[in-house]
Amino acid sequence: MRNINESTVTEAAVGLIKAEDPRLTVVMESLIRHLHAFIRDVELTEEEWMVGIRFLTATGQISDDKRQEFILLSDTLGASILVDAINHRKSAASTESTVFGPFWVSGSPHLENGARIARGPQAAAGETTVVHGVVKGENGLPLAGAVIDVWQASPAGLYDVQDPAQPEMNLRGLFHTDAEGRFWFVTVKPAAYPIPDDGPVGDMLRATGRHPMRPAHIHFMIDAAAHERLITHIFVEGDPYLESDAVLGVKDGLVTEFIVNECPEDAERWGVVSPFTEVRFDFTMEPVG
Amino acid sequence: MRNINESTVTEAAVGLIKAEDPRLTVVMESLIRHLHAFIRDVELTEEEWMVGIRFLTATGQISDDKRQEFILLSDTLGASILVDAINHRKSAASTESTVFGPFWVSGSPHLENGARIARGPQAAAGETTVVHGVVKGENGLPLAGAVIDVWQASPAGLYDVQDPAQPEMNLRGLFHTDAEGRFWFVTVKPAAYPIPDDGPVGDMLRATGRHPMRPAHIHFMIDAAAHERLITHIFVEGDPYLESDAVLGVKDGLVTEFIVNECPEDAERWGVVSPFTEVRFDFTMEPVG
Repeated sequence: MRNINESTVTEAAVGLIKAEDPRLTVVMESLIRHLHAFIRDVELTEEEWMVGIRFLTATGQISDDKRQEFILLSDTLGASILVDAINHRKSAASTESTVFGPFWVSGSPHLENGARIARGPQAAAGETTVVHGVVKGENGLPLAGAVIDVWQASPAGLYDVQDPAQPEMNLRGLFHTDAEGRFWFVTVKPAAYPIPDDGPVGDMLRATGRHPMRPAHIHFMIDAAAHERLITHIFVEGDPYLESDAVLGVKDGLVTEFIVNECPEDAERWGVVSPFTEVRFDFTMEPVG
Repeated sequence: MRNINESTVTEAAVGLIKAEDPRLTVVMESLIRHLHAFIRDVELTEEEWMVGIRFLTATGQISDDKRQEFILLSDTLGASILVDAINHRKSAASTESTVFGPFWVSGSPHLENGARIARGPQAAAGETTVVHGVVKGENGLPLAGAVIDVWQASPAGLYDVQDPAQPEMNLRGLFHTDAEGRFWFVTVKPAAYPIPDDGPVGDMLRATGRHPMRPAHIHFMIDAAAHERLITHIFVEGDPYLESDAVLGVKDGLVTEFIVNECPEDAERWGVVSPFTEVRFDFTMEPVG
């Protein structure tokens, strides 16, 4: 410990750890080794180190109870989707998960299947879209009574919590699958939108030549008895940002066609005006254990 | 980019970077690779990820114009001393550098050699200490006119900026070497002290079984024409924390004896009362280029 130099500092730093919690020792040792390896690999200059200190400080300081800039940083560096992937390894049959994002809120209203979640003037201007599907378990068997929490941005690319022009709890709802595992609701087609980019993470994106856009998507969080909670999106096929999602959340299996349906009988069946946009997506849940 | 999974996410995240600054590309790519490698190595859980997000946010939020908790974090993880080592590779003859720390202030008073930098009641209670030495260049030749910026904590372990009981600019001074490269000043023997540990970094130290103490030291920043600026400490031999400095700053070559001198003639020569504590330390500067 008295002979700290470039080659001894990592072992010295690791050697100081005497945590009672063995898991904390594992995490901190790995963190120190990788942090030091990064500094060595790039031979970080003192000026760059200070830029990093200032960036991290500003990222904490812009965060509050409505904004979490460190989650945004984790999302944009691909760390969030990696943590998600590691913690939700599934059989190939199960629907893939993706990032939770910062816009879910608790207390979304319980609604009947077929209800319209889009309200307010912006919603009225959007493309009426019927979303329907089946929640399935093992062997493709339908799961009755699954709870589906849905949330999405408006056609203008804003969530209700970001946009005073929208009614409270707009574009949100909790649905329950029927005896055949089916759910259906009416909304508007979501649009691509930028993540908040007026803070340090926005500065980082600009400096690295990246845009802040996410491709259009609808969020789902699905709970069914004896199955793992599924947190995922469905993405709109054809969106120009599918190849460059700012938070790296796109998975092939979650991209789906939003199809214009011109059949008047279908419109009548779903209780909407013809023509309308239709998307069918079936979710397959991973059994617990 | 549409096929993001555990094995493809790192290349996808790196692939988004299109910085105009080639150095930024190098740094960001390495940062992403090491961050992802850390997450994979420990298989970070979602709960641990959230603990990390909260820790980083709190570290930013406790920082202000007087407190820099991210520097403290970097210091305690050994990152600061590693950056210092990488940026100040020197010939074996040159005095080693160490961490700058957060307690230097600009505008320290210019003083004559022999001046007493310890003032106030705490200083009066400490062991009077004469610090002297020679600032040398190549081949051990003395450097005249070198500027030596000195700062240290009181015998109670506090810097003036932390302690309202001390006069302003206490235990600080700027000295100039004479024609023979010599400098000398009178102070009090420094004490070991804890780094600020009432924030997130203190929580981390406690959770990992680490103490917050730094061994007693005096800071030096030395500038001499045609030589690299030297930022370093001298440490007090025998301090119990030399083996476990909370910021990993100790280097063998910087540890030196603070010797009790009982010779009345020596006391008279330095203008102090016998017996007194004496430390001699010669600094060897690294030539520029």
